Amino acid sequence: MTTASPALAELAAELDTADPLAPIRDRFLLPDGVVYLDGNSLGPLPAAVPPTITDVLHRQWGTDLIRSWNDNDWWDAPLRVGDALGRLIGAAPGQTLVGDSTSIQLFTALSAAARLRPGRELLVTDPGHFPTDRYLAESAARLHGLRVRHVRPRDLDAFLAAEGEQVAVVSYSPVDYRTGELHDVATLTRAAHRAGALVLWDLCHAAGAMPVPLDELEADFAVGCGYKFLSGGPGAPAFLYAARRHHDSWQTPLHGWTGHADPFGLQRDYAPAPGIARARIGTPPILGLLSLEAALTAFDGVDMAQVRTKSLSLTDFFLRCTAELLADLGFEPVTPADPARRASQVSLRHPHAYGLVRALTEQQVIADMRAPDILRFGVNALYTSHRDLLTAATLLHRTTTTGAYDPTPPDAGKVT
Amino acid sequence: MTTASPALAELAAELDTADPLAPIRDRFLLPDGVVYLDGNSLGPLPAAVPPTITDVLHRQWGTDLIRSWNDNDWWDAPLRVGDALGRLIGAAPGQTLVGDSTSIQLFTALSAAARLRPGRELLVTDPGHFPTDRYLAESAARLHGLRVRHVRPRDLDAFLAAEGEQVAVVSYSPVDYRTGELHDVATLTRAAHRAGALVLWDLCHAAGAMPVPLDELEADFAVGCGYKFLSGGPGAPAFLYAARRHHDSWQTPLHGWTGHADPFGLQRDYAPAPGIARARIGTPPILGLLSLEAALTAFDGVDMAQVRTKSLSLTDFFLRCTAELLADLGFEPVTPADPARRASQVSLRHPHAYGLVRALTEQQVIADMRAPDILRFGVNALYTSHRDLLTAATLLHRTTTTGAYDPTPPDAGKVT
Repeated sequence: MTTASPALAELAAELDTADPLAPIRDRFLLPDGVVYLDGNSLGPLPAAVPPTITDVLHRQWGTDLIRSWNDNDWWDAPLRVGDALGRLIGAAPGQTLVGDSTSIQLFTALSAAARLRPGRELLVTDPGHFPTDRYLAESAARLHGLRVRHVRPRDLDAFLAAEGEQVAVVSYSPVDYRTGELHDVATLTRAAHRAGALVLWDLCHAAGAMPVPLDELEADFAVGCGYKFLSGGPGAPAFLYAARRHHDSWQTPLHGWTGHADPFGLQRDYAPAPGIARARIGTPPILGLLSLEAALTAFDGVDMAQVRTKSLSLTDFFLRCTAELLADLGFEPVTPADPARRASQVSLRHPHAYGLVRALTEQQVIADMRAPDILRFGVNALYTSHRDLLTAATLLHRTTTTGAYDPTPPDAGKVT
Repeated sequence: MTTASPALAELAAELDTADPLAPIRDRFLLPDGVVYLDGNSLGPLPAAVPPTITDVLHRQWGTDLIRSWNDNDWWDAPLRVGDALGRLIGAAPGQTLVGDSTSIQLFTALSAAARLRPGRELLVTDPGHFPTDRYLAESAARLHGLRVRHVRPRDLDAFLAAEGEQVAVVSYSPVDYRTGELHDVATLTRAAHRAGALVLWDLCHAAGAMPVPLDELEADFAVGCGYKFLSGGPGAPAFLYAARRHHDSWQTPLHGWTGHADPFGLQRDYAPAPGIARARIGTPPILGLLSLEAALTAFDGVDMAQVRTKSLSLTDFFLRCTAELLADLGFEPVTPADPARRASQVSLRHPHAYGLVRALTEQQVIADMRAPDILRFGVNALYTSHRDLLTAATLLHRTTTTGAYDPTPPDAGKVT
């Protein structure tokens, strides 16, 4: 595509040529001609996944059948994949488990945290948190006889000064999923701990996108999905991190047979397995787990600090493209310009967000929107190039200036 | 293999020749030379699954990417696969949902039942129920302030006569997973209803193996896994049935964004979707769901009454083989001889169950055992033949009489 700015094209080429992660793009099967900026909703297909799944279907399931629970280590997959994922979120082995959905893992973590802080009756969450985080906080509060308080991260200190003694757990995301704002995880964690509360991080928009040194932060719990920056596939199972220092005392709310200390004893009474394994509940979703395990090999040899450096270069470049190409066209960047406060996406506010995103999609530049008026462009350092972002900005410029899009709002009930 | 009984060989050949379901076996990719009698733990690979998953990986995920939530109907998959599965369990459309694990679906159903019967404080379950059913009943009781009572199905009438007014829900399985005994689902359902209680059926060992006319029975809730007789694959998602008459009033315990009335509105407050959809919680596990959907096509054109007729013929024949070939070798059949009380498996008690099952497996006859002393032989009318069962009985005869097995008990912590 002809760009409106030869200088930006030259800069993109320079940055991409100097990018040490550029070869990693070949680990993904991206369709030709598509610029994919929605990896923050669903990561693309890693090249390692299809051969793995073919093996899982034909050899492991089809030929080895039930024996695969032992012979192909299906039984240990939730813990093995958990450890592989733990390396990306600063978790030493034995603290991360993969299985179920983020919602279920959230319920487990919220319940466990509440029971580790008996007598404290408040669950604090962010009013801007993703809906499931808010709804599950309400569910956990109802089932445990607690109350939810909505406190913005910037107001946490003031809130804890007034009511901190009643707070059992602070449940936040490092990233505002709409604006792409990155909160100060270390400072918020320390603030919660000073008040005697535990902290639960939802890493859906952080895991695989930036370093999250959970152990070093002394975080208590974390959860996140496997299908965004980790590219584990649609509805890939989620993860749960529980810090080792809680392993002697934590209690999970839903007791399933796979979390039993002696699962094949099929005993009458529940006795929790040691460590993170007690958070296992039902039979693990093997296809999704092994797809995620294969997907995580895309990070082999990649340092999360490199990922963060490139991610910031990408979002910085896109903000520059926006400033140069989209000025005076009704766009307002809502992602902070300050790199310390910027996650791995750029969000632009525009009254015709829906129509513009659809028009981009029809021209093979795939982003997404969040109602009512935010266009979201997610970057993934493993495969996004600066050139991809210039293509997106150029197309957005052309679409907006020519009016080649439908400005009517979306139908209810559709994935946007 | 040379059989010890030419008469049984002749009978097996006659029965297999007359079997109207014999051609259905080609819908499964069973390995050559293997007799697979563990479909009641993990069904084999249906031929329809690999091409479906190849399409899901390369076209739907790899090429269509995030657009697949709409364009390939990923969003509706939990309800669509639920309706397809509902046909096998006597459920009219709109009452069955697929997703999460059996354990999570159990928690949803137990909680919903308890909240439909406020003021009643007992959850009744079977002391012989599968561990997860018992553990989850305890979890639900603790979180809802209720108590669990363990009552055998044969003692239910007496218990309800004494304490029926306090019972919110009776949570049973039609099948004892160890003995293969089939309970009288209709009588037990009526007994619970007469006491004003609701009934929850765990169909893990029934769905796909026999007709279960849930609507006709006026059952309230049912759950079950997708990976046994339904052959959906390892850790396939589970199902939840909630009778339509409860849809106006039921409340689920865990509120996730996909169960919201307006999921893409991303609203601050939870408002439940109408019907069965409110039991959706997190993002659905697409690989497992679409594998299960493909697997269910193995039932196309098959009447569940035919499945039951053939299943009884198979277990009847195996009991006959046992009586003729294994007499005086230390085996005690624990599955009822009465066909009305027999599910789709035959269990034999033997002190060396573990070693015998291992010896069979090494010779390509795959069954399983349940500690401490039960050998389980599951039959699936879609692919098991009478000849398969004669092979198993003949091999068991030879192994036992020659002592060609290790009589030591199993290691703890292994899938047996």
